[in-house]
Amino acid sequence: MNFPHMIYGGDYNPDQWTEDIWQEDARLMQEAGVNLVSLGIFSWAKLEPQPGVFDFAWLDQLMDLLHAHGISVNLATPTASPPAWMVRLHPEMLPVTAEGVTLWHGSRRHYCPHNPDYHQYATRIAAKLAERYKEHPALVMWHVDNEYGCHVGECFCDNSAAAFRGWLKQRYTSLDKLNFAWGTAFWGQQYGEWEEIPPPRSSPSFPNPTQQLDWARFTSDSWLACFDEQKAVLKAVTPQIPVTTNFMGFHKGIDYVKFASHEDVVSNDNYPDTSDSEWMIQAGMTCDLMRSLGNRRPWILMEQSTTHVNWRQRNATKLPGVMRLGSYQAIARGADGIMFFQWRQSKAGAEKFHSGMYPHIGADSRVWREVKELGNELPKLAPVLSSQVQSDTAILMDWESWWALDLDSKPSNDLRLMPQLMAYYAPLFKRNITVDFAHPETDLSRYKLVIAPNLYLVTDSAAANINHYVENGGTLLMSFFSGIVDENEHIRLGGYPAPFREMVGLVVEEFAPYSETQSNSICTVDDKQFKCGFWSDVIHLENAKALAAFEGDYYAGSPAITCNQFGKGNAFYVGTIPESDGMEWLIEQVCKSASIQPVSMNAPAGVELLQRTNGKSSWLFALNYSAEKVTIPFDGRGRDLLTGANFNESIYLDPTGVAIIQLDDSN
Amino acid sequence: MNFPHMIYGGDYNPDQWTEDIWQEDARLMQEAGVNLVSLGIFSWAKLEPQPGVFDFAWLDQLMDLLHAHGISVNLATPTASPPAWMVRLHPEMLPVTAEGVTLWHGSRRHYCPHNPDYHQYATRIAAKLAERYKEHPALVMWHVDNEYGCHVGECFCDNSAAAFRGWLKQRYTSLDKLNFAWGTAFWGQQYGEWEEIPPPRSSPSFPNPTQQLDWARFTSDSWLACFDEQKAVLKAVTPQIPVTTNFMGFHKGIDYVKFASHEDVVSNDNYPDTSDSEWMIQAGMTCDLMRSLGNRRPWILMEQSTTHVNWRQRNATKLPGVMRLGSYQAIARGADGIMFFQWRQSKAGAEKFHSGMYPHIGADSRVWREVKELGNELPKLAPVLSSQVQSDTAILMDWESWWALDLDSKPSNDLRLMPQLMAYYAPLFKRNITVDFAHPETDLSRYKLVIAPNLYLVTDSAAANINHYVENGGTLLMSFFSGIVDENEHIRLGGYPAPFREMVGLVVEEFAPYSETQSNSICTVDDKQFKCGFWSDVIHLENAKALAAFEGDYYAGSPAITCNQFGKGNAFYVGTIPESDGMEWLIEQVCKSASIQPVSMNAPAGVELLQRTNGKSSWLFALNYSAEKVTIPFDGRGRDLLTGANFNESIYLDPTGVAIIQLDDSN
Amino acid sequence: MNFPHMIYGGDYNPDQWTEDIWQEDARLMQEAGVNLVSLGIFSWAKLEPQPGVFDFAWLDQLMDLLHAHGISVNLATPTASPPAWMVRLHPEMLPVTAEGVTLWHGSRRHYCPHNPDYHQYATRIAAKLAERYKEHPALVMWHVDNEYGCHVGECFCDNSAAAFRGWLKQRYTSLDKLNFAWGTAFWGQQYGEWEEIPPPRSSPSFPNPTQQLDWARFTSDSWLACFDEQKAVLKAVTPQIPVTTNFMGFHKGIDYVKFASHEDVVSNDNYPDTSDSEWMIQAGMTCDLMRSLGNRRPWILMEQSTTHVNWRQRNATKLPGVMRLGSYQAIARGADGIMFFQWRQSKAGAEKFHSGMYPHIGADSRVWREVKELGNELPKLAPVLSSQVQSDTAILMDWESWWALDLDSKPSNDLRLMPQLMAYYAPLFKRNITVDFAHPETDLSRYKLVIAPNLYLVTDSAAANINHYVENGGTLLMSFFSGIVDENEHIRLGGYPAPFREMVGLVVEEFAPYSETQSNSICTVDDKQFKCGFWSDVIHLENAKALAAFEGDYYAGSPAITCNQFGKGNAFYVGTIPESDGMEWLIEQVCKSASIQPVSMNAPAGVELLQRTNGKSSWLFALNYSAEKVTIPFDGRGRDLLTGANFNESIYLDPTGVAIIQLDDSN
Repeated sequence: MNFPHMIYGGDYNPDQWTEDIWQEDARLMQEAGVNLVSLGIFSWAKLEPQPGVFDFAWLDQLMDLLHAHGISVNLATPTASPPAWMVRLHPEMLPVTAEGVTLWHGSRRHYCPHNPDYHQYATRIAAKLAERYKEHPALVMWHVDNEYGCHVGECFCDNSAAAFRGWLKQRYTSLDKLNFAWGTAFWGQQYGEWEEIPPPRSSPSFPNPTQQLDWARFTSDSWLACFDEQKAVLKAVTPQIPVTTNFMGFHKGIDYVKFASHEDVVSNDNYPDTSDSEWMIQAGMTCDLMRSLGNRRPWILMEQSTTHVNWRQRNATKLPGVMRLGSYQAIARGADGIMFFQWRQSKAGAEKFHSGMYPHIGADSRVWREVKELGNELPKLAPVLSSQVQSDTAILMDWESWWALDLDSKPSNDLRLMPQLMAYYAPLFKRNITVDFAHPETDLSRYKLVIAPNLYLVTDSAAANINHYVENGGTLLMSFFSGIVDENEHIRLGGYPAPFREMVGLVVEEFAPYSETQSNSICTVDDKQFKCGFWSDVIHLENAKALAAFEGDYYAGSPAITCNQFGKGNAFYVGTIPESDGMEWLIEQVCKSASIQPVSMNAPAGVELLQRTNGKSSWLFALNYSAEKVTIPFDGRGRDLLTGANFNESIYLDPTGVAIIQLDDSN
Repeated sequence: MNFPHMIYGGDYNPDQWTEDIWQEDARLMQEAGVNLVSLGIFSWAKLEPQPGVFDFAWLDQLMDLLHAHGISVNLATPTASPPAWMVRLHPEMLPVTAEGVTLWHGSRRHYCPHNPDYHQYATRIAAKLAERYKEHPALVMWHVDNEYGCHVGECFCDNSAAAFRGWLKQRYTSLDKLNFAWGTAFWGQQYGEWEEIPPPRSSPSFPNPTQQLDWARFTSDSWLACFDEQKAVLKAVTPQIPVTTNFMGFHKGIDYVKFASHEDVVSNDNYPDTSDSEWMIQAGMTCDLMRSLGNRRPWILMEQSTTHVNWRQRNATKLPGVMRLGSYQAIARGADGIMFFQWRQSKAGAEKFHSGMYPHIGADSRVWREVKELGNELPKLAPVLSSQVQSDTAILMDWESWWALDLDSKPSNDLRLMPQLMAYYAPLFKRNITVDFAHPETDLSRYKLVIAPNLYLVTDSAAANINHYVENGGTLLMSFFSGIVDENEHIRLGGYPAPFREMVGLVVEEFAPYSETQSNSICTVDDKQFKCGFWSDVIHLENAKALAAFEGDYYAGSPAITCNQFGKGNAFYVGTIPESDGMEWLIEQVCKSASIQPVSMNAPAGVELLQRTNGKSSWLFALNYSAEKVTIPFDGRGRDLLTGANFNESIYLDPTGVAIIQLDDSN
Repeated sequence: MNFPHMIYGGDYNPDQWTEDIWQEDARLMQEAGVNLVSLGIFSWAKLEPQPGVFDFAWLDQLMDLLHAHGISVNLATPTASPPAWMVRLHPEMLPVTAEGVTLWHGSRRHYCPHNPDYHQYATRIAAKLAERYKEHPALVMWHVDNEYGCHVGECFCDNSAAAFRGWLKQRYTSLDKLNFAWGTAFWGQQYGEWEEIPPPRSSPSFPNPTQQLDWARFTSDSWLACFDEQKAVLKAVTPQIPVTTNFMGFHKGIDYVKFASHEDVVSNDNYPDTSDSEWMIQAGMTCDLMRSLGNRRPWILMEQSTTHVNWRQRNATKLPGVMRLGSYQAIARGADGIMFFQWRQSKAGAEKFHSGMYPHIGADSRVWREVKELGNELPKLAPVLSSQVQSDTAILMDWESWWALDLDSKPSNDLRLMPQLMAYYAPLFKRNITVDFAHPETDLSRYKLVIAPNLYLVTDSAAANINHYVENGGTLLMSFFSGIVDENEHIRLGGYPAPFREMVGLVVEEFAPYSETQSNSICTVDDKQFKCGFWSDVIHLENAKALAAFEGDYYAGSPAITCNQFGKGNAFYVGTIPESDGMEWLIEQVCKSASIQPVSMNAPAGVELLQRTNGKSSWLFALNYSAEKVTIPFDGRGRDLLTGANFNESIYLDPTGVAIIQLDDSN
């Protein structure tokens, strides 16, 4: 992706409107500073009204119209919503749930990712589009399908079962290896023929956990295969046009680490519920993930809403200024484009109460004014384009471990990865410490601090990589129930956490998850007392030092938080969930130990500070989420790209205010 | 219906008992003053034990027995529970859920309303009954089927799918019109063949909303078609015998406005949960609906319970006197008959713990004494027969708008019509203001005040009708999210509420639904402060005056309640949900503006007052729901039909007491 | 069962481990005092890897190895988890839910109990095992299948439907009798052909209650038939080897009273949640049931956990000492064996986080130390073997009444048997009064006190038996909603509780169940006031005396608790649920009336006292569940089997301490 300015625009669905509206659209887009639209995402039935009969005339007209108005096109392959005729001809393409319920035509994403007919039609329409528009000057990006895995994460039909078996044959090559990996000796589940293996459909009790884990891997790979086959078709015709598909944040169903490596540019749909007072933390975490997935390259915020969505139980409006704050947050965290679903709010259909850039009421509205203001402000950020965000802290995040941790039949089935990630992310966010998300098998040497929340499943190579990182001088903070199983979800014997036992300098004898009403407390070496909750590891020190000990229950006095010097580095271990103050204390210890510096010290609450840098310049982004004017101590000097104001010593921000300060290097 | 006395009786299921009990039943019925029974509602398997083999002998005997005891018969077509042999011969007649689950024989109502075999058998048994009893002197009414739409509101089988497509062809005539109406361009759902259209079975996400709305219309029409075909058969043989079926109050699945227009007399089953302290409001609202459905003609309370039912989680008894109160409430609100499910409490089966007129314990019981007392009291009400209830207030109620409002994918999916109807009905009830329910396309000129709670969907003709009503001097109170869509559920563009924008003199720019924990308040022009909840319209006045303004949130100071003079009338608009006191204040304003007078002023709390009138006389019904003796100010003069007591200045009532005062005209 | 010492051991699944581990297992078992293992419970696929191809070599080796180490074998028929090839060959063997959902291979218990192919395979593998090991010296017991009815309690497939009809033909011989019993006249459900009768699959409303009750009987009988056919095969080959299967406590799905009479020895799996502070009451109740099911003969605790399980939402650890307490509780209540699931904690599969005797971490662990200590302590209990537990109090418990009571469509559908059983059991437990569970048709003359909590369904013979018991001098405490229906679930007319009306000396006119927020209180003849909840009977005394009367509601002043002299005995009746203090008061009255003496008076709270006796000696078991040292008044004299300490006047126990005192007869 190489755009001369910040991308600005949205999904454009002109097929919902008459042609006279198209002209108005183009004019209004210009007025709003739109320079890119995602076109035709759900237009398959219009482009191919009968099998093999194509109608591109209307799209030709729109491509030309947009181009004439200086608007580029992120052209969609419309494969997220197959035409009704395809369902009529191939009813077995409909997805089926684990209970055997068929999901019918009438909404969207009504296809099984393993249906061969679907694949044939999907690659054909992609090829037709590529051939048709390969030389059209408006075409600058391909938007493949839409939100893979949304609604229908998996299909359990017979085609899917066969595809699963094919995938398993590839992974295991023999049934002996599969039987070993799945531990089928337990409950006498041994398979003697490949044909005997079902998907994890409804069964009497807990299905085999490794079967479930492989099913998650398979399903994720299936969506990626859908993308890959279209990408191949598109690249064959238009090798120079970047290809993306829109992610959905921390979407559990697809391993985005693997998927992102197949994309030219990472893009994401982000719909924080801004009626939640901590929405910006969740949104920031998602931005950091997207930047990390693309190896810190700029990414695109492909969809957000100008104000309310339609699919929550209650769909709050975004208060004035909040859409702008969220947009700049994304840019501050590495985005080079801001787009919306959708350009013009629908008049009919399931999402007519989803806000658009151009609302039902029209131009005389707060929403339209905000859209125009942002669109006309963004060109000022041209210098920031392609710059990067630096971080010396990483949180380890591995989809496979997430899948395995969230399976049933655990010591505590209320342990879920997402809240634990957030428990570590939030205090860092509040300290203005920028975080990357890193896969445990990647090179971690760029980081001063690495945090591993509940990294339950680790491969041998991940374990070696993490040990290596600490041994060579890194600081690690690992939380309980990490390193418990291997990639087959077999217990790593030898004392939990076996692959890290030497590094963390301790052994965990028992897991003691709490009942719903139970609680406990810890006392630190500097005599602070904090509540803790949910879980206690019963820990025996081997080489580590205790930083805090449990105060209650049968293991009272035993270590709760420890630190161990390992090689040139330090490994902190936390065998419980410290509650708020305790978590703050813990993060303070590890940041001090790792010499982590926030973007800015002493920022007032409710303010977010971030920095982007290219070889030559740096920009400090200051965002005020509070309803008060704030003054931020500033030991630099610079000029606000948005207003031209010069700041030194302090930065002043209005409520919901934003400053993007090009830092003066002489300082 | 032309009955010489108040109807009194119940469902009679003699086939559950041996013949010796029948004789006892007849004697006891006489003792209790029973003059009508609904006979044979579930007797199909007994009447037609094998396909085409009929056994009427037992029914002949019962018809004669009842007639000999002076008891008339409301003879049922037994089509609510088809015989087991029919299921054996035509298993595809069983209903199927949206998830594809078949619902089997073993309870009742196990038929798909679109099954052709079922229809053939149903009309045949109806014809046989009509032929057999057309001249029997006991026969005075037909009770077709039982509680259409109960349990199984809809069927998604393949027969139903075909019937749906047939219905759609009739409605739209072409696929182009259907595609337009359904807005299939959204999410690329265009249909190219009729065969492609499924019912709204389980699908990946929100099904097309217009598809859902048409499905609701179709399903409602299907039940009506079941009724119509039987009615035609019965009328062909016994044109003079009135035909009814029993409604279920505010039953969402069937458009009772449409259905009632096909009936000779409206009848209803009403089972308020009297452990709810406001049961009489819910029950009163249902009575008012029934009277309104029959165009203010007398209706029949076809089923109620003497005390507990069996199908709630916890089935409270009715306290002494409460069954009598509920019965007189129905009469006060226009009923000319009081009946029960069922005559004799069952000994076996699913409803043996449902109370009956004659309980398990027999005659030495409170329940039986209450049944006899009421039955022997009702003949005193003969003068009231066929008199009417007058109302100058109406609440607009349209099943189509209800269906559309309650669909998913709305600004707030917790907005449901029923609680909103109740929010406006309850303060009127407490003020003893009698209310009709009116369809928005009917002539409203008889009303001084019309209330439109959340009238989300309006046809062009409904919009014109409402505008016309106000323009010609009516007073309207309209609440938020009214006039939003047309009959296709397409947004009416032009600024919400577009078809009423001029009439209400304002435009709504944004909907701001609240999160679960959010609240707000309003301040009125007379400086009162009230809490409000759930939702705020962001309103710009055009011609209206603000009566109250919001105090909090980003639209603080903008109007919350307004009034606009339009033509000769006044249109009030309320852009939120005022909490209790605020709603009282609002109702007071609009009643004052519309010069609405309650039946009686200054009645103490817990007392309900109503009036029935014929050309010559009027009767004041006074019901005391409280556990205290009450004195009600009374500026008339009259004589209690029940006790013969004369009242003037005050009416005295014991706890649970009732007076029915024939008003002295000279006053 | 005739074992020379207390049984100690667990489920042993060596097929999950390599052979080198087997040697270590045998050595460790010896170290822990293990003398019995349940072997091969899930080994079908390993024993019969292809249809008809058997591999016993590995099992031969294990039988020999165990025998060589002095460990006996409770050999399993592996039929709880059929091999995958069987599902491939006979997919119709998979169970199907009431909604028609097939439950697939991949966990365990994936078989329909009515599948003829399954039966053939299951009896063949059982026969093969019996033939192979009939003379092996290690074989001492047969463990048939595993936890019948777990996960999949019932199957609704077509085979099951046919089997149900076959069962019904046997029970009723004619459709007329079935139609009468089921009360099919209600809702017109009459059956004219056997083929018309479905299982109670999903249906529009409440299925016929007697159909549901017969379905429960049929399903229970089906599991018993599975057991019987294997038992027959085993007994034919090894008539001298006792046969058992493991029960699951108060498991509703199977009538254990009937089932236990087919077993040689009763065994049970017990997994109390020890994070519940009253776990020992629930566990004690289960022990008492098991003893009662075996007619007071010793039973085996076949499975418990050393510490946590894996299948709860949160799986708490057992605190130190708690596993030992639970083990001695079982012995005190009649067990002669203590076993665990499972010997070695799994490394893979669905239950790898279920604790084992030998944990993941190995020998240097609290769990292993506790396992060894208990195993090495148990031989001291040899004198206690085969002794019995005496009780002069019984609670009536009938699975058929449980099924009927818990059906829907009741006065209060929140009335469930289990909490009511517990409400009467707990105060007795706390008073150290040992309780048997007795079927209402068994001879009750051995008991001084019989309690009948909500004995809703009674056969004529049960009713006669209970009346006879009281008439002959017994004391009965009966709670509301008893004696309401017969075995067809038809109301017993004649005034509730009709078959006991004379005995209890009263008639119940109405049931008045409370709404969720309602409450009431009672006042006793000795002027105590207690809250009561959930339900009131409206009672008219006939011969009984009131012991307490209701204080509120329309029946205020009417009796709530009564006592009636009937023949030589006394019948107490309680028409509500007295809350805690009131229940204590009630239990005190009936115990006093029946001259019930606890095992020991004045024991401090948190202590459980029980006694076992053979012809010659008695042993007092004292268990301290509290975290405090306790002193228990002791008016005997004796020697602790565990420590050799002598006690008189007082027994001293440490926290979680246990003493087993052989009582000195001279006292």
